[in-house]
Amino acid sequence: MTNIKSYLKQNKKRILGELLEFLSIPSVSAQVKYKKDVAKTAKFVADKLKEAGGQNIKTFSTSGHPIVYGEKIINKKLPTVLVYGHYDVQPVDPINLWINPPFKPIIKNNKIYARGSSDDKGQVFIHIKAFEYLLKEKKMHTNIKFVIEGEEEISSVNLEKFIRDHKQKLKADTTLISDTEILNENTPSITTGLRGLAYFEVEIIGPNRDLHSGLYGGAVANPINTLCEMIAKLKNKNKKITIPGFYDGVKLSLKEKNEITKIPFNLKKYKKQINITDIEGEDGFSTMERLCTRPSLDVNGVWGGYIEEGSKTVIPSKAHAKISMRLVPGQNPKIIKKNFIKYFKSLAPKSVRVNIKTFHASAALLTPTNSQEYKAASDAYKKAFGKKPLSVRGSASIPITNIFNEVLGATPLLLGFGLDTDAIHSPNEHFGIDRLFKGIETIVYFYENLN
Amino acid sequence: MTNIKSYLKQNKKRILGELLEFLSIPSVSAQVKYKKDVAKTAKFVADKLKEAGGQNIKTFSTSGHPIVYGEKIINKKLPTVLVYGHYDVQPVDPINLWINPPFKPIIKNNKIYARGSSDDKGQVFIHIKAFEYLLKEKKMHTNIKFVIEGEEEISSVNLEKFIRDHKQKLKADTTLISDTEILNENTPSITTGLRGLAYFEVEIIGPNRDLHSGLYGGAVANPINTLCEMIAKLKNKNKKITIPGFYDGVKLSLKEKNEITKIPFNLKKYKKQINITDIEGEDGFSTMERLCTRPSLDVNGVWGGYIEEGSKTVIPSKAHAKISMRLVPGQNPKIIKKNFIKYFKSLAPKSVRVNIKTFHASAALLTPTNSQEYKAASDAYKKAFGKKPLSVRGSASIPITNIFNEVLGATPLLLGFGLDTDAIHSPNEHFGIDRLFKGIETIVYFYENLN
Repeated sequence: MTNIKSYLKQNKKRILGELLEFLSIPSVSAQVKYKKDVAKTAKFVADKLKEAGGQNIKTFSTSGHPIVYGEKIINKKLPTVLVYGHYDVQPVDPINLWINPPFKPIIKNNKIYARGSSDDKGQVFIHIKAFEYLLKEKKMHTNIKFVIEGEEEISSVNLEKFIRDHKQKLKADTTLISDTEILNENTPSITTGLRGLAYFEVEIIGPNRDLHSGLYGGAVANPINTLCEMIAKLKNKNKKITIPGFYDGVKLSLKEKNEITKIPFNLKKYKKQINITDIEGEDGFSTMERLCTRPSLDVNGVWGGYIEEGSKTVIPSKAHAKISMRLVPGQNPKIIKKNFIKYFKSLAPKSVRVNIKTFHASAALLTPTNSQEYKAASDAYKKAFGKKPLSVRGSASIPITNIFNEVLGATPLLLGFGLDTDAIHSPNEHFGIDRLFKGIETIVYFYENLN
Repeated sequence: MTNIKSYLKQNKKRILGELLEFLSIPSVSAQVKYKKDVAKTAKFVADKLKEAGGQNIKTFSTSGHPIVYGEKIINKKLPTVLVYGHYDVQPVDPINLWINPPFKPIIKNNKIYARGSSDDKGQVFIHIKAFEYLLKEKKMHTNIKFVIEGEEEISSVNLEKFIRDHKQKLKADTTLISDTEILNENTPSITTGLRGLAYFEVEIIGPNRDLHSGLYGGAVANPINTLCEMIAKLKNKNKKITIPGFYDGVKLSLKEKNEITKIPFNLKKYKKQINITDIEGEDGFSTMERLCTRPSLDVNGVWGGYIEEGSKTVIPSKAHAKISMRLVPGQNPKIIKKNFIKYFKSLAPKSVRVNIKTFHASAALLTPTNSQEYKAASDAYKKAFGKKPLSVRGSASIPITNIFNEVLGATPLLLGFGLDTDAIHSPNEHFGIDRLFKGIETIVYFYENLN
């Protein structure tokens, strides 16, 4: 019998080669031009599950991108773990800032550079390879199911229906997800909470055509100025979000507050890492509190008027912005959505029209830290990384997690291997090879500990 | 001897054909890819001046686009008129809103649709054809000089140096410019003032790369939110511009105030024409006062973050805006520029960096209404349009006008034939054929009246 460390050593070259192939398929779910590549990526995932020894592999079509299912059922009486992940990736723009093309993965300084290397192809791959080891070495003592989707980056638009439609097939005790971070290479951590997400696109409509700013300037509302004024009103001078009822239900126990102070945080290093002159956030909270326990509001994109080189004296007909909010436990996304739409429209002067499109509205999540599964995971990280993991409420969102919990009763367990410096959603995304292999180890130990 | 009406009748087809050819060359000065086309357009202008019978035609190279010069000197003792205009045009975006391609001119409902048809190729062409008539019919009793440039839409970056370098050659009593509007088809008007222009591009710099809004949202300044907040502060709730000292020197005489009330203005029609729900502007002023006598501030373009389809949860590294101000008599553009840069930077929080680029800063203009030239022009419009023209302070800017005045001592005379509904700087720019021919008539009568 080969232990996992030896297995990885023996198969290192093959495993890395497969991952680079996985990363080279441009599975950008948000952009129609990549539709075929997304489908090709689904097939790649299905093939790898099959090669690992999985059964009942099936690629389910949806009205969007396919969902890959696979399983290995040992004994229905044994606990069942449902592995969820996504093979789709974020768009790559601004493309000019990538040092290496995003879909031509390369290895530099023991890191793999490619879109999706950390979020989430690299982490999905960890699970497929742990699964392969357990099957090849006949070490499986739990049932394992896989649901790997292709629409996480576009709010998992078809996954909820899939879960509800296949409730019996997906039944599990635990939903295991690796789409989060550890604190740093030497400080493992388990994510015990996630922020929810509400995402909107707003359109401000002024005149029916672009106007000459000389002929109309000062007499007609400019949709860009108006949009800016409306966005500015979404926060007050203390950086509190002004949407009515936005903070209703938001609270933090003293125990949780104490845990946050344990998270290592170095302000100087934090500022240097992203080269900012100063941090900025809601008055009265530390950076870690802001990230893990407070809701936030960001404009993710803005556009309007003349944006090419040089000058054009125009009052544009329209201006647009993409605005999203990260939600924390206690906030109701349906109410937030209703309140945002009503409030944002109320901020508009009579001189413009407003359209709002909702992309998503999902609640935050808190996971238990006193379960058998949590203990198995904590011990697994300790064995792989040599240090007991901290429990950390995460700042990001995986909207679908709540649905697995609600529909299947499968308690979520967030065992991530990313780093916040992996530049996910940014140019030059990368993933450390050490974390790839330690990740596979950790997952194998987790299944062993579950026995 | 043929009078101008008969001449135009006999030559209508040829004249229209030449104008369509002129309009079909894409002379967009702001975009490098059109550089050759801009040069080709300069040659077209030079050729037409030559064919008309002009002398000393020369195309002067500059560090940007060429300047075309031509003249006909009858007798140095006679008055000299310097015709100034521009053959370059505004960019065409948003291109998808053009019903017909911008550089494939067509005639529909007695109007010519093409970029530059009104601003300013069509109006430059009026002068070339009036010149042609006067020479062919031997009716010239004034000296005429032409300066037709290719950089008006990018702030005439090389023209001031050209004027100073060729001070003797360009010497004239009057600078005649047709790059403005009449009130409507049946209400001719002479523009007796222009607003100045200050144009800036601002850049707000946050983190050194795009960040994941889940991992950083709420803890780091978002350059888009910051930009919006800074732009919002440029006007107060009464829509007064808040730049310190901005209104210093701005005033309006009672006489001018009275003249403005004479300008026909129908609010309902105005709103309907551009399909706005309401007008908006500085408290305490009418729409015509806002347009003709008050400075304004508009964001002409804004961009940052993810602006493609769907959602991307990103905090962008940078956000940008193009911001311009229309200035009125009394405002000093150098002081406005200095104050804007200082003030805008002061609006930035410590968490971001700010860069500001200045594209232009030029003063407003007032022209005399009691001169012999003004009377000649007024009588010319009356003869061509059948109605005495009103005197109107215009809202747009022709920055170089001040330089002609200052360096050459050539009093500006703004005899425009555009309409504010010509959609200049917008998709589907057009120019009425009636105005083209009445324009040529008016200019011919003007020269006759000057005797």
